Amino acid sequence: MASDLISDAATASTASAIARLVKPRSVAVIGASADPAKTSGRPVSYLTRHGFGGAIYPVNPKVDTIGGIRCYPDIGSLPEVPDVGIVLLGAERAQHAVRELAARGTGAAIVLASGYTETGAEGARRQAELVEAAGSMRLLGPNTIGLVNVTDGIPLSASGALEMEHFPAGSIGVVSQSGGILGALLSRAAARGIGLSKLVSTSNEADLDLADFIDYLADDEATRVIALYVESVRDPARFRAAALKAAAAGKPVVAFKIGRSEAGARAAVSHTGALAGADRMYDALFRQVGVIRAQTFADLIDIPAALAAGRVLRGRRVAVLTSTGGAGTLVSDSLGVSGFETPPPDAATAAQLRALQNGDHAALDRNPIDVTLAGLQPDLLRAAIRTLLDSPGYDAVAVIVGSSGLAMPDLMADAIRDCLPGSDKPVLAYVSPHAPHVAAVLNQRGVPAFSAPESCAAALGAMLDAARLRAAAEQALAAAPAAPAAGIADLPSGSLDEAQAKALFARFGVPTVRETVVRDDAQAQAAARALGERVVLKILSSEITHKSDIGGVAVGVAPQDVPARLAAMRAEVAGHTGREPERFLVQEMVGGGVEMILGLHRDALGTAVLLGMGGVAAELFQDTTLRLLPPGGALSREEAAAMARELKTWPLLDGYRGRPRADVPALAEAIVAFSRMAAALGERLVEAEINPVFVLPAGQGVRAADGVAVIA
Amino acid sequence: MASDLISDAATASTASAIARLVKPRSVAVIGASADPAKTSGRPVSYLTRHGFGGAIYPVNPKVDTIGGIRCYPDIGSLPEVPDVGIVLLGAERAQHAVRELAARGTGAAIVLASGYTETGAEGARRQAELVEAAGSMRLLGPNTIGLVNVTDGIPLSASGALEMEHFPAGSIGVVSQSGGILGALLSRAAARGIGLSKLVSTSNEADLDLADFIDYLADDEATRVIALYVESVRDPARFRAAALKAAAAGKPVVAFKIGRSEAGARAAVSHTGALAGADRMYDALFRQVGVIRAQTFADLIDIPAALAAGRVLRGRRVAVLTSTGGAGTLVSDSLGVSGFETPPPDAATAAQLRALQNGDHAALDRNPIDVTLAGLQPDLLRAAIRTLLDSPGYDAVAVIVGSSGLAMPDLMADAIRDCLPGSDKPVLAYVSPHAPHVAAVLNQRGVPAFSAPESCAAALGAMLDAARLRAAAEQALAAAPAAPAAGIADLPSGSLDEAQAKALFARFGVPTVRETVVRDDAQAQAAARALGERVVLKILSSEITHKSDIGGVAVGVAPQDVPARLAAMRAEVAGHTGREPERFLVQEMVGGGVEMILGLHRDALGTAVLLGMGGVAAELFQDTTLRLLPPGGALSREEAAAMARELKTWPLLDGYRGRPRADVPALAEAIVAFSRMAAALGERLVEAEINPVFVLPAGQGVRAADGVAVIA
Repeated sequence: MASDLISDAATASTASAIARLVKPRSVAVIGASADPAKTSGRPVSYLTRHGFGGAIYPVNPKVDTIGGIRCYPDIGSLPEVPDVGIVLLGAERAQHAVRELAARGTGAAIVLASGYTETGAEGARRQAELVEAAGSMRLLGPNTIGLVNVTDGIPLSASGALEMEHFPAGSIGVVSQSGGILGALLSRAAARGIGLSKLVSTSNEADLDLADFIDYLADDEATRVIALYVESVRDPARFRAAALKAAAAGKPVVAFKIGRSEAGARAAVSHTGALAGADRMYDALFRQVGVIRAQTFADLIDIPAALAAGRVLRGRRVAVLTSTGGAGTLVSDSLGVSGFETPPPDAATAAQLRALQNGDHAALDRNPIDVTLAGLQPDLLRAAIRTLLDSPGYDAVAVIVGSSGLAMPDLMADAIRDCLPGSDKPVLAYVSPHAPHVAAVLNQRGVPAFSAPESCAAALGAMLDAARLRAAAEQALAAAPAAPAAGIADLPSGSLDEAQAKALFARFGVPTVRETVVRDDAQAQAAARALGERVVLKILSSEITHKSDIGGVAVGVAPQDVPARLAAMRAEVAGHTGREPERFLVQEMVGGGVEMILGLHRDALGTAVLLGMGGVAAELFQDTTLRLLPPGGALSREEAAAMARELKTWPLLDGYRGRPRADVPALAEAIVAFSRMAAALGERLVEAEINPVFVLPAGQGVRAADGVAVIA
Repeated sequence: MASDLISDAATASTASAIARLVKPRSVAVIGASADPAKTSGRPVSYLTRHGFGGAIYPVNPKVDTIGGIRCYPDIGSLPEVPDVGIVLLGAERAQHAVRELAARGTGAAIVLASGYTETGAEGARRQAELVEAAGSMRLLGPNTIGLVNVTDGIPLSASGALEMEHFPAGSIGVVSQSGGILGALLSRAAARGIGLSKLVSTSNEADLDLADFIDYLADDEATRVIALYVESVRDPARFRAAALKAAAAGKPVVAFKIGRSEAGARAAVSHTGALAGADRMYDALFRQVGVIRAQTFADLIDIPAALAAGRVLRGRRVAVLTSTGGAGTLVSDSLGVSGFETPPPDAATAAQLRALQNGDHAALDRNPIDVTLAGLQPDLLRAAIRTLLDSPGYDAVAVIVGSSGLAMPDLMADAIRDCLPGSDKPVLAYVSPHAPHVAAVLNQRGVPAFSAPESCAAALGAMLDAARLRAAAEQALAAAPAAPAAGIADLPSGSLDEAQAKALFARFGVPTVRETVVRDDAQAQAAARALGERVVLKILSSEITHKSDIGGVAVGVAPQDVPARLAAMRAEVAGHTGREPERFLVQEMVGGGVEMILGLHRDALGTAVLLGMGGVAAELFQDTTLRLLPPGGALSREEAAAMARELKTWPLLDGYRGRPRADVPALAEAIVAFSRMAAALGERLVEAEINPVFVLPAGQGVRAADGVAVIA
């Protein structure tokens, strides 16, 4: 908790620095060129062209004016301390400029030069020097393309996308770890009439990073939705705090992350110099902090555009209103593939729709609802949409725009927009022919418009996710502080043997099978008799992990057969290892349960608990799920139970085909206990896995039957 | 084979009819309006505007001329017999016009009216009358938007997409079962500079259908790739023949099919009036006839555009050449997700690339290969692409176009095009900013250009598929005629009991467990003794299918315990059913094998053999695969073995983690035998499933252990 207080103060100071960076009154452009075709000529040209109202100070000793603006020979001769310095020099000279800007008290420098961490060790040293040169001045970059404050018309960037005459202001804030992608998103959104608020390229993140700008956008009044292009989250704890803040502010965060494949991860590392965590760890991180993951690059615009409309999806029933049969079917099918339903209208709605008909062949009482002639009849279109929005049978309306809508896009778009007040259900549009101007007109009127049927489904899916993820984020924010840890002063260390490992798990509250460590036949037989019935015999060693591969496990041994079975086991193991085993475990047999795996995964993103179904088939399907430990401590019971429900094999725990329901509450308790252990031991716990843990029928609990642990 | 001869003759006559329809010398337009804004005014307007060189005969008793062309009062007064009649009248009057056109000897009529099978029984009757009225004249539609012969500049369509001034001619032939989708594809392709050859909307397919036009396009010289928008394949056998013909002609066929979800299937049915088969059956059909399935609607343009370039992908190693770091990483990541590799250049290639450098920060010796400044340096771009195409380390080159390429797209596109001769490896482009004009310029120069990173991966994936699927199609064409069927005159009928079912499977060559039908304890014990070791006891009944749920199965029973176990079973089953079972099966125990399911699936597309892994986990993952029976008879051994390899759990058969390899050849033989049975019994085999079939370790064969069959 103490670290939270510190970071609160740091955050407040960062927030005001970012506010000054994003909305400066004065901008110095160091190394500005008089040739607007050159990259170094662009920022001054863009600031002028897009109407920046503050002071522009080009710095270039070789020219007197740039685009009619007075040019200064050096930073020292600037007439006032600039809020922002855009540094367009190469890496060698950029450091010098940064030091001078800092010395004058500049708020922040934007450094475009490349040649830093992304190029290796030498570049990393150069980046460290740059940070040192900046001192208390804030840095954006290096290797950034800058930022664009669309809300206030302030482009602080050399992105070629700013060659456009106009881009619409709106409510989507974009943070990209790639400068080129920032330009792509800016130009693609503008072409579709989708309005953005702020765009920032953080790139190398020598200072200001993803989390800083999420935090800023969470407070920014012009921003309603935050879109992230992520190559690597460098500081998961700060990312988490910022994302939860955005969630608390009711602003959905949508992220497209690369590094999903090995090839992509390697490319991202070489592009940014940052170490990437496993992609599935990002899935866990995003889910736990309420971030919606975009599955395709197009989704990174499409989903925020849909969410920015600010309407509420409460269910999966979509009315598809079409003016062209084939496209309506296409969208219905895509919606169906994504788990949405397109039921026919209920009787009352069908009657209302039929009353709108004029005797033509339009089929208004089914779904897709066909209003083939309505493109030319705005009144019919308006009446049909209102009827569908009012219908208790639908949660959203998708309007299909065919070629009949192309001739008079405003007429049609106005008709759709007129229907928005009076209902908060989502209305979205699919534009079937190539007609970007029609999509733009619709987007600008607050009707998210798509040209891919899959995008309609992705957008609606994200709307449902948004509600669910917001709840998850609220839960994470409200999470109780960690329970006091069990004493850990007396822990063994090194690679634990099976008995020690299970004793460790048990100490933190994971139920384990009853067992006894034995050294000879007599002890073994006595232990077996005490357990009663048949038992499991295993060799006990901290070195041998694959016991069954070398004959070191026997199942279902009756007490009277124990000595003979031990003799056979000694011989077989010795045959494999060259040495007779000295210690054995006599364990109770557990039957009738579902075998699962509970383990630990740790990488650059943090420590996660892994839950998976046992058995080879589930293993082949990689049917596992992860949860990162929250900063404060253990997972909650709700999180733990949600993990089990996420497995594709969840039905096996849930009474599939007449099986007994498994004791899921006990499984959740065991997951929480395991996570408590991981939180308490921290870095000391190098490795831990329970495999299998038997989940018995409801009321009978769970039993950890085997496991490994390594303690540093 | 006899039916093949008949269909050959029919096909030849259809081919010449379609040739006359697609490239007519004269076109009558029945019900043409003088107002080009009306749907009925469009065809004459489009024919004129897009330069049709033949005769145009508008038919409309109310006006004298349309757009300066003489108008005729009725069909009877036309000065010659037209090759094609476009009928723009409503359903009521269309039939009359069709009859008159047929009477005059017109080659084909295109009927746009709706209100036929898609509206229900009354419409179906109307459609039958229409077909009757056409007689030997061919029909396109009804409910069609017509066809566009782009190669020869002949638009026979009312699609609003033809409002465009120009659309490029090219080598992609499109057949769409939806008229609206035809327009969407036409306008979308044109906007991207992708050239098409012919577009046809078959819609209700009262006469000419999907298969007819695939067959036509397989012969069409202008067409290199065939793209299909499929709602439902009405005649699978003819579709199969046409697709195999296209494959034999070296023309890839790409299909996007809707009806993937229940909602979509219902919408497709109500849209076209055709019954849809299960989506997974379409997967099987497409795979077996070499059709590439497009996964997204955009893929239906993107994949054909990539294939039309006619270049050859021989492996999975892609060089990504980028002028903008972020987008290069994005494309690498997408490629990686789809199973492609982006390895760094080998030493010789790296040295050649470094030699191209000019001392800037471009990183030419990794992958993505960064030529940030090359957008303005066509020579560097050209040299880099040539180096990568010549490298033995790469199978394809993806060029990333950033904002530096936007200013002079021709310069850049020419540089890329210049590299195409001298190598047949694929070269494709990803355009990162919004720049449709750049993509168009590239596409027109034969460089497939995409704006979604996922499309690059889909296009390259399809190129690999194309080679594999073509081989599959060749195999299908070369398939031997079916083996003579076993005698089936003496078959039992009705719902068979387990012993009868397995006897049926065995008769066609599926190995089964040894077993004996018994009625009392003495017989049972004798049978058990004869089998030796422990046995399985089961009740035998043709009525009870879930034997184990009612205590009707006992496993691992020693011969001496048989009477006691039978007594217990009688009591337990009677407790459930109210009746003591009278007959039992004594079966050998099979152990150490992999349990699989072998079954039958039948729907509108035909009869398919289903192979799946047993066990509940595999069942939850729906790990099954299907193959349709070919028209001639049984599946081939190769097909059968390929089915097993397609399962996600294939490793369980293939020595996963030290397990013994399973007897896959024997499994393939069993699948072939099962398919032989299905082919021989045809419709008489209502239901058949072997569950489980044990696949034993290599050399030990397979054993069908339980099964059901229903014979009509």
